[in-house]
Amino acid sequence: MENNTAKQRYKGFFITFEGPEGSGKSTQARKLAEFLTAKGREVLLTREPGGTPLAELLRKLVKNFEGEEVMHADTELLLIEAARVQHVQEKILPALQSGKVVICDRFADSTTAYQGGARGIDPDSIAFLNRLAMAQCVPDLTFLLDLPPNIGFARANERKETKGEHDRFEEEQLNFHLRVRNAFLAIAEREPSRMRLINADRDPDTIYQEIRAIADKLVR
Amino acid sequence: MENNTAKQRYKGFFITFEGPEGSGKSTQARKLAEFLTAKGREVLLTREPGGTPLAELLRKLVKNFEGEEVMHADTELLLIEAARVQHVQEKILPALQSGKVVICDRFADSTTAYQGGARGIDPDSIAFLNRLAMAQCVPDLTFLLDLPPNIGFARANERKETKGEHDRFEEEQLNFHLRVRNAFLAIAEREPSRMRLINADRDPDTIYQEIRAIADKLVR
Repeated sequence: MENNTAKQRYKGFFITFEGPEGSGKSTQARKLAEFLTAKGREVLLTREPGGTPLAELLRKLVKNFEGEEVMHADTELLLIEAARVQHVQEKILPALQSGKVVICDRFADSTTAYQGGARGIDPDSIAFLNRLAMAQCVPDLTFLLDLPPNIGFARANERKETKGEHDRFEEEQLNFHLRVRNAFLAIAEREPSRMRLINADRDPDTIYQEIRAIADKLVR
Repeated sequence: MENNTAKQRYKGFFITFEGPEGSGKSTQARKLAEFLTAKGREVLLTREPGGTPLAELLRKLVKNFEGEEVMHADTELLLIEAARVQHVQEKILPALQSGKVVICDRFADSTTAYQGGARGIDPDSIAFLNRLAMAQCVPDLTFLLDLPPNIGFARANERKETKGEHDRFEEEQLNFHLRVRNAFLAIAEREPSRMRLINADRDPDTIYQEIRAIADKLVR
């Protein structure tokens, strides 16, 4: 992705967190937002799919859909990209244009990993739709919280029992989550300057120290 | 579009009706369905956006959306294509495979005309997404019910007052509907073997006689 053209269009800084369920993304994103806010930056902390009322409605549809018909993989992909268009246009782009740091829990790489790598939709369709939805908003920095699937899987299962909610992704089998991980690692290999691989199989505070140090150095 | 490869994959026959609101599409589609049923064919009469519970939910969202945020044109496009994936995979393709005649009130040409021609989304994105959603289901025959926009506009307005419902497309201005018409006419020019141009500014029975004669000759 051509990061440079995009960067010239706004003054802000765009950070995304990627990785499986149970990797601690949300906690780390929140802690980093608190750190950068304390340093005097204006921060927008947000998540995908979601981030606007319409996008949150689509998130619910994608994650919790139940019905007599099957939700097809292409449908899931298109709904996620529709949510992304709303999120980028209504929230992320305006925030970056006004100079904010945007921290987003999941973004386009999740689509590449889940709908592409794991569901098997061809990479061209994914890339085309990601480009369409992201417009000029390409992350400046992405933390990939990497975790062996069996560990993330166990953590997500514990959480599922707590919240007792039907989630189409958390209910997928171990093989699905192995394909997700491999797809994330492949992105990290392709885009080493944007993506930082973080070993998420450590205690949260150690992980946070590493993330904070990287962000502290890079966030303009 | 390469119609031939698609045709070899199923035994059925796929007819679509296209044109502006107020052109009498739905009435004509219903009458043709009745005629072909009376002739002993199994017919699936359906519509877009919609045709499955999930797709109908997306139709409602696209047509009647109200909220503080704007629904962006790309979002509208992606939601319509998501609905189309469900409709094609769950209803249209199985019906064609089992040898039925499928009659659909609006299909991919409406996306080319409304989201492409009228909303201005680039033709490559529209074509890419239409191909993705249609899979191998390319219409064998399309009736374009053509009407000067001021007439369709007036009819649709009357109807709007009757049903008293907010509709994002019917509320568009005359210029929008002029662009829709021009885009439909451009498709008819590009694909004369599939698309039959029907003058819809005549009484419904005259229009029906013309449509019935064409279908009677072509439906296998």
